[in-house]
Amino acid sequence: MESIRDKVAIVGMGCTKFGERWDMGVEDLLVEAAYEAFEDAGVEPKDIQAAWLGTVFSGLTAITLSPLGLQYIPMTRVENLCATGSEALRAASYAVAAGACDIALAIGVEKLKDLGQTGVKGPAIVGDNPDGTTGLGSGFSAPASFAYLGTRYFHHYGLEPAYGKRLLAEIAVKNHYNGSLNPKAHFHNLLTVEQVVRAPIVAWPLGLYDCCGVSDGAAAAIVVRADMAKTFRPDPIYVKALAVSVGARQGCMRQDYDYVHIEENVRAAGMAYDQAGIKDPRAEISLAEVHDCFTCHELILYEDLGFSPGGKARDDIEAGTFALKGRLPVNTDGGLKCFGHPLGASGLRMMYELYKQLQGKAGPRQIKDPKFGLAHNLGGNAGMGIASCVVLGNEKSGR
Amino acid sequence: MESIRDKVAIVGMGCTKFGERWDMGVEDLLVEAAYEAFEDAGVEPKDIQAAWLGTVFSGLTAITLSPLGLQYIPMTRVENLCATGSEALRAASYAVAAGACDIALAIGVEKLKDLGQTGVKGPAIVGDNPDGTTGLGSGFSAPASFAYLGTRYFHHYGLEPAYGKRLLAEIAVKNHYNGSLNPKAHFHNLLTVEQVVRAPIVAWPLGLYDCCGVSDGAAAAIVVRADMAKTFRPDPIYVKALAVSVGARQGCMRQDYDYVHIEENVRAAGMAYDQAGIKDPRAEISLAEVHDCFTCHELILYEDLGFSPGGKARDDIEAGTFALKGRLPVNTDGGLKCFGHPLGASGLRMMYELYKQLQGKAGPRQIKDPKFGLAHNLGGNAGMGIASCVVLGNEKSGR
Repeated sequence: MESIRDKVAIVGMGCTKFGERWDMGVEDLLVEAAYEAFEDAGVEPKDIQAAWLGTVFSGLTAITLSPLGLQYIPMTRVENLCATGSEALRAASYAVAAGACDIALAIGVEKLKDLGQTGVKGPAIVGDNPDGTTGLGSGFSAPASFAYLGTRYFHHYGLEPAYGKRLLAEIAVKNHYNGSLNPKAHFHNLLTVEQVVRAPIVAWPLGLYDCCGVSDGAAAAIVVRADMAKTFRPDPIYVKALAVSVGARQGCMRQDYDYVHIEENVRAAGMAYDQAGIKDPRAEISLAEVHDCFTCHELILYEDLGFSPGGKARDDIEAGTFALKGRLPVNTDGGLKCFGHPLGASGLRMMYELYKQLQGKAGPRQIKDPKFGLAHNLGGNAGMGIASCVVLGNEKSGR
Repeated sequence: MESIRDKVAIVGMGCTKFGERWDMGVEDLLVEAAYEAFEDAGVEPKDIQAAWLGTVFSGLTAITLSPLGLQYIPMTRVENLCATGSEALRAASYAVAAGACDIALAIGVEKLKDLGQTGVKGPAIVGDNPDGTTGLGSGFSAPASFAYLGTRYFHHYGLEPAYGKRLLAEIAVKNHYNGSLNPKAHFHNLLTVEQVVRAPIVAWPLGLYDCCGVSDGAAAAIVVRADMAKTFRPDPIYVKALAVSVGARQGCMRQDYDYVHIEENVRAAGMAYDQAGIKDPRAEISLAEVHDCFTCHELILYEDLGFSPGGKARDDIEAGTFALKGRLPVNTDGGLKCFGHPLGASGLRMMYELYKQLQGKAGPRQIKDPKFGLAHNLGGNAGMGIASCVVLGNEKSGR
């Protein structure tokens, strides 16, 4: 089969301020994100030929998009739990690459705070089988279902628990530092390792600051045929890879599961690197936005995504590899730790950061000379998860 | 922009028995539909490279597909109310046409009976704005929101109400006759015009037999690159057009709305005919499966889809144009009238009939020498509707 690489480009993006947006309805958030994207691309609603909406809980059908002023065009809702925002971009990109439309909107939204119980309807579902049947994960809360990856990782690689907990804390400190530089983030507070380690425990080894917040937000992208992209702007960003891997309840139910990796992450990353022509992700990926719902997940993602060899993420954390000034900055915008995780928006929010970084427009967070950016999401959990990896690149990436 | 025409083909389909499937769970229905499609295409689960699930209420995330034995491939859920099944085929087709995969599964399911209140959570939503805001349609039940199309049509074209009601009854009688020949249909009972006219009124002019039933079901399609299709079977069916038109709450809220057409239907049909290269649908479409949720909708669809000139559908109904032996048979499988409307399944159930008819394998319902088949869905209602039109064709259609 062919590849999606360089068939489509992003020529405009928008992202709302994330947070407790009690002041805004779903429609307001959609308008805020979409119109920033329209303006950025230099298009008007009438130019949009088709649209895809990603949302899990904040709207039934694509009619939810009606405040945008799109009329009688194809509009479709996609949903894939925590990967929902990325799926909106994937659907729009395939339609453009298929020749079904030339200019498409991908938009994602979630008003998680409206769900009550501080959004527990969202994240808490992680441990349950989505259809209500009983599985290994049933009854687990999201923190509990991820926490065992931390404890097992410590054991497997011989890390003293106190040391492991400080290692996780370094991840939270890094992401909060990045978020403090980002006006669109929900949280801007700096943290110290001591604060993170001493915070109340949610599910050991995860304390309060090891867990992402619960936020509202929306983000949007204008996707066009790559050969038209330069007519919109001098610095379009190209879609290099769109990969999804869904585990059908086998990973964590197998007796031989190691609990120190998530197979869906590994598979999705492998597909994405193949599509993008990336042979050595550690050397070639310039920056990554990864699904740091919990710090221990970011830890194992360093290895699942091929940034660190198995068991060696500790060395990279200690060396500052993933810090803003490091060799492979991760979650430069603050990540889920500072943006929370409004499910339909998160994937596109990550791509918004890649897009700005790849254009050299990330302000105080700008990294040096990026070429390839990776956005990663994981919904569910090992063996019943949905992993998405999207690779974007600028002109220097070899388009 | 290019067209999707003839880039992808369907090489296998499956469809469950529709009905009150208390004996089967969502997973069982998915397996029944998918494995019929696998067998029909001569493929195994391991051959499927990507999958799209259409469901509105019967599953969160594509992990719902896990009983099919697909593992670590991309799987995605799409939802667009009553057009959800058709959207699964559209998504799979775009991915194949984009070069992202060569062999994809599109599958739709809904266990509407599980929703309680005889499924009212599904159909009753039609009159409400899906996001819960107040609009013209709020509080309308589905029959009420469609009934005014009947009364206004009678008035607009000068039909005596009693005559108009008999005209609608003819549609119910036709569809029940077709359904009586179809073992997969929910209802097999023949009706007479007198029975339909004298049935209890639900929302005038719609009586009990003018309304579709509430059913469970699933249907599936195997979609491949058109240039590979003949390696699977000698008689693949080609995707000629995939059109969707979403109204953003303007049609029925405009003072000048005529209440005798639904603009979304007209737009989606126009897009589909353009894509398929069809200039005269009345002459070129061999058969159609249309969204007969209520008989008055099938009536106006004859005109919205270009089968009859405005106001002239009555002549065609009287002439038997849309009967099984007529010049342009509509709902040859029994339609929503006999299959009910499990939202995620309906679009693919319609395509299953087109597929069998276009292959000459529709048994006692087989029509003569078909070339092009149209499948139409409408979710919502005028001005806040989602219309989908898919055109399929066999070798004789000019592939």
